[in-house]
Parts: sequence; C-alpha cells; structure tokens
Amino acid sequence: MARDAIADAPYPAHPRSAMDGFAVRAEDGVGPRAIVGEVRMGHAPPGAVGSGQAMRIPTGGAVPEGADSVVPVEDADERDGSVVPGEAPQRGYAITPTGEDMRRGDLILRAGIRLDARALGVLATLGITAIPVWRRPRVAIISTGDELIDPDKVPGPGQIRDSNRYGIAAALRGVGAEPVHHPRALDDPAKLEAAIERARAESDAIVLSGGSSVGVRDLVPRAIDRLGKPGVVVHGLRVRPGKPTVLAALDEKPVIGLPGNPMSALMIFRTIAEPIFRRLTGEAEPRGVPAFARAATALVGRPGWTWFVPVNVEIDGVERKIKQLPIRSSHTSLLARADGFVIIPEDRPRIEAGEAIEVHPFLQ
Amino acid sequence: MARDAIADAPYPAHPRSAMDGFAVRAEDGVGPRAIVGEVRMGHAPPGAVGSGQAMRIPTGGAVPEGADSVVPVEDADERDGSVVPGEAPQRGYAITPTGEDMRRGDLILRAGIRLDARALGVLATLGITAIPVWRRPRVAIISTGDELIDPDKVPGPGQIRDSNRYGIAAALRGVGAEPVHHPRALDDPAKLEAAIERARAESDAIVLSGGSSVGVRDLVPRAIDRLGKPGVVVHGLRVRPGKPTVLAALDEKPVIGLPGNPMSALMIFRTIAEPIFRRLTGEAEPRGVPAFARAATALVGRPGWTWFVPVNVEIDGVERKIKQLPIRSSHTSLLARADGFVIIPEDRPRIEAGEAIEVHPFLQ
Repeated sequence: MARDAIADAPYPAHPRSAMDGFAVRAEDGVGPRAIVGEVRMGHAPPGAVGSGQAMRIPTGGAVPEGADSVVPVEDADERDGSVVPGEAPQRGYAITPTGEDMRRGDLILRAGIRLDARALGVLATLGITAIPVWRRPRVAIISTGDELIDPDKVPGPGQIRDSNRYGIAAALRGVGAEPVHHPRALDDPAKLEAAIERARAESDAIVLSGGSSVGVRDLVPRAIDRLGKPGVVVHGLRVRPGKPTVLAALDEKPVIGLPGNPMSALMIFRTIAEPIFRRLTGEAEPRGVPAFARAATALVGRPGWTWFVPVNVEIDGVERKIKQLPIRSSHTSLLARADGFVIIPEDRPRIEAGEAIEVHPFLQ
Repeated sequence: MARDAIADAPYPAHPRSAMDGFAVRAEDGVGPRAIVGEVRMGHAPPGAVGSGQAMRIPTGGAVPEGADSVVPVEDADERDGSVVPGEAPQRGYAITPTGEDMRRGDLILRAGIRLDARALGVLATLGITAIPVWRRPRVAIISTGDELIDPDKVPGPGQIRDSNRYGIAAALRGVGAEPVHHPRALDDPAKLEAAIERARAESDAIVLSGGSSVGVRDLVPRAIDRLGKPGVVVHGLRVRPGKPTVLAALDEKPVIGLPGNPMSALMIFRTIAEPIFRRLTGEAEPRGVPAFARAATALVGRPGWTWFVPVNVEIDGVERKIKQLPIRSSHTSLLARADGFVIIPEDRPRIEAGEAIEVHPFLQ
C-alpha cells in the first residue's frame, strides 16, 4: 500500500444498539413505556422516542432520536404494547456512540503494509475501494554454470539440475516481486555480459545464481563491473553458507549474485536479498512476533563469521528444542528437512545448551 | 502436493569434488603427480587418473575414474606440469560420494505440503517437473443482512459496509482455496435459501457472514436445515468473540456461518474455519515454530469459555511483552492495530503476569 488509510468519517457514523432490546430514555427510570415502533436493520428509525416511550431495536440498529439507553430484551417485561425495565436504565447503556471505533481523521493503516486479508477488510469498512499501491518490481533470474541442465533431464557426470531458479522465483513472488525467467548463461564472459545486459533492459532488478567454481568465480562480478556503475559493491561475505555472494548495482538497479548451492542460495535470499526486495516493493518491515526455541546442545560458530544454521525444532513437553542440522550447502535433503534456521552472530559464536534463540522461518 | 516426492536416483549421481584442486590417488602419498588433464564443469572427465597422475578439477566437477582424493589448490605445489601435495592425501578427502545427499528411494517431501519456494526448488533438483496436487476448492462467500451496503456507498443510519467478504476472500486464497463472491442475501428465508442452494450447486464449500441480530439469528441455520442433511451440526460456540458461529454441512459440503462482526469473523475463520479448509485442500498441518511472548499483566478470561484476545507485542529489551487489547468484536480499528491474538482456554481462564504464552498471527 503506497498511501496511509485514514478514516474519512466517524465509525460508527450514527449511534447504534449493541444489543437486542428497547431504545428508551434513561430519565424515565423504572416506569412503563409505550412501544411506539420498531427500528429495522439497515433503515433509519421510523421516528423519535419521547418521554414514556420505547422503540424495539435489534443489535446494530440505529438508535432513534430522543433515546439514550437500550434495555436488553432479557431485562424487559413486555405486555399489552408497553415495556417495563427490570431496573432503572443507565444513560448510554448498550449504545455504541458515534466514532467509538474510529474518529474522522484517524490513521488506520500505514503506507507500506501488505494488502492482506485483514487490510482488505479494513479498507472496505472505510469505504476505500481503490488505493495507490507500489508496482510489483520485475526481477530477472539468470542461472549460470556450464554444469546446469534442465530439470527434466538426467544429470550425467558433473552435471546438476538447474533448480535454484524455481525456488528463487517462488521466493520473489512471496515478497511481492514478479520473477521473469531468463535463459541460462554459460560460463563465457561475452555471453554472460549479453545476458545481464538484456535482463537489465527489461527488469527492475537481477538475481544471478551460481558461478562460484574456480574458473568462473570472478566471471559474474567482472561482467557486472564492465556493464556500468556503481557495479560490484560487495564480493564475498563472512557468512556460512553463502560466502561467494555478490551484491552490486547497475545505475539504480540491484544485481544480486546468489551462490550456486541450494542451501546457500535460499539462506542468502532470505537474509540478504529479501530486505532489498522489500525496499523495492515499498513494503515496511513486517511486525511479526519472533519465534524462540531452546538450544538442545551448544551451537558453535566461528568468531568473525555469521553462521546460518538449519535446525529442526522438536516439541519436548511445553518446551521447543532446537536440534542443529549440519551446514552442507550442497545438500538439498537438508533444505527439505529443516524447520527453519538460527543465526550465530560473529561477535558471539557460541550459544549455550538451554539458551533461548530466535528461529527464523525459511519463507516469510 | 498430493503425492510423496521420492528420490528416483542417488544424489549426487556421481562422485564430485567439494573443492577446487587436483584429483589424485591417496596411495601415492606425498610424491609428485603428472597433471594429465582437466575436468571441466558439466562434462565427464577426459579420462582416468592412474598411479602417479593428477587431474585438475573444479568444485562440483566429476571425480575421474581411479582418483580417490582431492588435493585442494591451496595445499598443492604446482610446477612444470606436475603437482606435489603439501601432505599425504586422505582417501575420500574433498569428495562428495554418490548418494551422500539423497539415496535412491529416500522420501524427500511428504504429500500434504504446500508447494512453496523450498519445495519447488527441491522438486526441480529431483527432476520432478510435474506432480499431482489437490484441486483448489471453490468456496462461495455469501454475506447476509439487510443492513449491508456496498463498500463504495456512504452508510446511512443503521447501515454498514459489506466488508467482511473481502477479508474472507483473501483469507481463503491464503489457505489455498478459490473464493467465489455471491450476491448478498437479504434477511428473507426464501431468498436466503435460494442463495445457499445456488452456492451449493457451484461450490465445494460455503461461507456465510453475518445474520446474528434477533430477528435473523436463526434464519441461516433454518435455511441450511431445510436444504439438506446433515444440516447444522453446531450453532453457538462458548467462545468470545464468535459465539453465534454456525457449523454445518450439506451432504459432503461444509457450510460455515461466520459472525457478522469483523473481529469475530476473522477470529473464527482463523481458529475454526481454517483447519476445515486445510483438510479440503489436502494440506497437512504446517510445521511452524510457535511464537511466545510474556503477559505484561494478568489476562483474565471466563471459566467454561474460550477467549481469543487481540494483543500487541512490544519489545522490551530482549523480552517480548504481550499487551492485551479489548475484545470489541465490532471494532475494525482493533483489527488494524493488533499484532496477533492469544487464546485463554476454558479450563484455565487466568494467565498470570510474566507467563509466556503463544501468540498466534492473524494470517497463516
């Protein structure tokens, strides 16, 4: 959502009854009232309520002029066209006054939220049936590597299936971007440059996957640097998995080089790329409630490095216990098995057994 | 996903190098090796490695016949067409053997998971480019109530905007169903029956919203009961908000009557309807990690009743603190402000200040 949603009027716009009963004047005390009519749902009251009068009213019905209290039907003794309250009505009882929910001018939803079920319902309540939104950024996906084959082929020696691009595409959709698949680029400088240049012309951002073996490790950053400014900003992160990450830009367009291993690619997408795409889509940081669990055994990282450790979370009575999985960045099976991951920070590379630590989901 | 995903072959299918270096025979010890060729990414090795020989190999390259160890490039002294390892190579070092990630026949992803970014990447790795899925159930949405008007109209006295259906539609999409908007039904038995009958013919399930004021409280359950068996199973839940909930079925088709108030409707959708739709879509219970926070003050419910309490979660140092919001089921502004909700169970209606309690998100 690209603009705040403001209440243009008080809600409710008119006083309404919070119960089924009779609209009366409190000042009439416990005396009997003549029933002078009935408020129907969705209609203005058929008239006003005067002294000594009452009007039948349903939950949500508009409170008639003159009435300042509602006697619930279960507290009312009705006979012969009149009604007697069980006790003296309190002024304002069972009436929702104008503006109790929202006042005119109240900020109800902030720009930057995602238009989810809750937001759409709230906007409809406010009468907002159209609101400016940020355009979905188009993000080109290019996988690189001579070893890649299509997923429907059987890998020969040294070959692997080009699978990351499908996970990346779904993850991009999840953050509100529109993924666009581009053909695989071979490990050839001219072809890689041409592929990036094409993607740049058609997209708002580019995600490259793979290209970190010795011969090609520098192909991607070199191609980016040749194509424009500012070029490569970061090449290599002190993280595990995900060290060979490349962060770059061509003019205003982010170019992100994800590692080729599936575990590394998803971890870096989640921790590094996702916040960048969130900026591109205009989405504010989501106000989620973090999930914590206790380390079943000590988790040991490496000083000066940030580790992203895939974990299983096991229920142990009322406790949730974290069980560390190995970081094997090439292992697809680990990716399938993990419930999430924990971060071991560079400045505190040991988390003791029993410590509570945040567990991040793989997908936001 | 309607079928388990099984590995049809070992992964990797062939031994591959985990580092850039030289493929050698461990038995040759620290002796020099003649470099007899180079493994290229994505290609079968150009030949075998014999005694006293070595072959250049990149990370991910196919290990040649005869080699049983890889000497990392940084531990190798290369000169004049031969290479000397810094120390005696260990058998299997830096080689990922066939099947280390997955063995043929391993169950990798279970039927019932959602095809998200992770699953799509894993399936592509397994070469599964098509897999049976459960059909999205079509769910009819009918809002009821003479007080409802279109969201682009300005409410007169006693009128409110028909907003719940938009939130419900988005929530249905979120659980994998396909929402179908049906026209509003007025509070008239014949028209309501006709509307439900039409929806039943075209849909796999029906969600009704509203219709809980005194005059119409029983219209929805009566209409359902007249239309078929088993009809209404539950009318009224000891929950707050959401008491007037109706749970019914016509033959095999679930019919869910949500309360008309926006907060009640979303709470009941989330806690009661969502698990029902999850069954319809074939989705297994998601393996999320629950989020906990501490009650800032005691939370007090009511014995014999289950309360769903909207909350804000505030960060207080490393602690997350729950701040209770009032349960005002008609208040849209509360819905916009809450970070989630907590459940106060019927058999333990008091949660003490400082207790940790699970916070449920509004949207799954």
